[in-house]
Amino acid sequence: MTDNTTIAIVGAGLVGSGWALVFARAGYTVRAYDPSEEVRGRILSWAKDSLADLQEVGLVDDPETVLARLSVHDTLAGAVEGAFYVQESVFETVEAKTAVSLELDAAIGPATLVGSSSSGIPASRFTEDCSNRDRYMIAHPVNPPHLVPVVEIVPAPWTAAEGVEQVADLMREVGQVPVRLTREIDGFVLNRLQGVLLNEAWALYEDGIASLADIDATIAHGLGLRWSFMGPFETIDLNAPGGIEDYAARLRGLYAGMVRTPPRGPWPDAVIARATEERRAALPAEDLAERRAWRDAKLSRLVAFKTSQGLTD
Amino acid sequence: MTDNTTIAIVGAGLVGSGWALVFARAGYTVRAYDPSEEVRGRILSWAKDSLADLQEVGLVDDPETVLARLSVHDTLAGAVEGAFYVQESVFETVEAKTAVSLELDAAIGPATLVGSSSSGIPASRFTEDCSNRDRYMIAHPVNPPHLVPVVEIVPAPWTAAEGVEQVADLMREVGQVPVRLTREIDGFVLNRLQGVLLNEAWALYEDGIASLADIDATIAHGLGLRWSFMGPFETIDLNAPGGIEDYAARLRGLYAGMVRTPPRGPWPDAVIARATEERRAALPAEDLAERRAWRDAKLSRLVAFKTSQGLTD
Repeated sequence: MTDNTTIAIVGAGLVGSGWALVFARAGYTVRAYDPSEEVRGRILSWAKDSLADLQEVGLVDDPETVLARLSVHDTLAGAVEGAFYVQESVFETVEAKTAVSLELDAAIGPATLVGSSSSGIPASRFTEDCSNRDRYMIAHPVNPPHLVPVVEIVPAPWTAAEGVEQVADLMREVGQVPVRLTREIDGFVLNRLQGVLLNEAWALYEDGIASLADIDATIAHGLGLRWSFMGPFETIDLNAPGGIEDYAARLRGLYAGMVRTPPRGPWPDAVIARATEERRAALPAEDLAERRAWRDAKLSRLVAFKTSQGLTD
Repeated sequence: MTDNTTIAIVGAGLVGSGWALVFARAGYTVRAYDPSEEVRGRILSWAKDSLADLQEVGLVDDPETVLARLSVHDTLAGAVEGAFYVQESVFETVEAKTAVSLELDAAIGPATLVGSSSSGIPASRFTEDCSNRDRYMIAHPVNPPHLVPVVEIVPAPWTAAEGVEQVADLMREVGQVPVRLTREIDGFVLNRLQGVLLNEAWALYEDGIASLADIDATIAHGLGLRWSFMGPFETIDLNAPGGIEDYAARLRGLYAGMVRTPPRGPWPDAVIARATEERRAALPAEDLAERRAWRDAKLSRLVAFKTSQGLTD
């Protein structure tokens, strides 16, 4: 029996656990499974701590009620029982994704949809042999999903359009922001945009144009301010008197002239070594975990701020 | 006589007027000039309104005192009198920049430094014939400079290193975030990073991968959240267990694989037309000005939020 109130989380590391919070705080019954007993043992205590953090910044009212919707299960079949949607977040290799997709294939209900958190591997590479392959797709979040709302929905060539609609609707309903890709492409949209910016940042650093910290500052104290609530197209639409067309007429030549031909290859080892040295001088390796917690605390406050300002959709 | 308390603003449209606020609120005496009488006539009333907005979000305590530091002058020579620094923000063409640089050359004091707000034209293209050319450089802000703190400092080949240091120190002192480029490059750092992201966004849109609104959402509700207080290098440093080196080892292959070879040329007319249609459906042309005011209101609140969170440097 499948109802429309139960969602399964398969793979419950940091990404999967974040997903569990997304669905539970929106009112769904969430059943979580991870193959690792150790990971399973952490889910509820992590959720409790994270809900307390969300409550502190005003993003959750009643953490106990949310937590009560979440249960942990010892088997994949046990977790997906009765679920109308499965969010799969296992380790990102074709092998692991293929194995879990086939295991799900035998366990899900006749109308259950499956979204994979895959950040780069398209669904066509690991769902081809599933008998229910028309109900599998990518639902790629940004980490952590309970703080960063965007989700890329990417169908495989055989994914049914109806299921894609349903998952997009579900994501909207639980407060995420679904982005719909019409077809598969390496890196999807989000990591392609991140990728070109990173490639250029590495090239500028390699050429000695500016320090790593200064390149970072152009985003953190410059471009990133607008981009935290407005995309690049709306940004340029507002940056010329006559809108996007006017902006394009004035500046497309400048931007075309900046293209590196031929494009650089992978970030070189020697440059990575230099960047590592600069980063470790700014933040010793033993402080990375603390800085990540700091980032998430700031992110949660930023999300609360955006919510208070009506900037969440 | 040049003291270290007076700054001149030459070219006082939106960018120059924003600069006037930056320096006046930090305690400097600011003398503004614009060749257009109409523009000159707007400076003080715009400053008054903007200071009221800044006060409302807690970014300025005493607007009257700040406003009292600002005066408007009918001639360039009158404005630069006694100034130890000139922020030049005239129309961005080589001709206009050359003309104003030569006019400044004859008017500035023996130690006065000049920073141009040029967003893309390097100083070597318009200061070569100035007798004081070793004291000219680029000081490129993001609009509006009184809200977005980053400033790119870019020396021409003949700019003296000492002056570059002094302008960077000045920018830091007035609460901006100076980014130091070691040498000139088309687009500097900021617009190169914006440019590669825009070029990829246009290509994805042209290929029909996602709608313009959805591509915007991947930034506004995804990547832009972290980037509003953390640059791309720190972002990836925190996104792998072992830091930036670990991230590079895992993902540089993925990002190298996304490079378009050959890179695309200028954004095509037909695609711009389609994008314009999509934007104008989302925001009619007559509402552009109102949306810009909305953006700046949200930006000022974001800056106040970042200030309250200790995220401003």
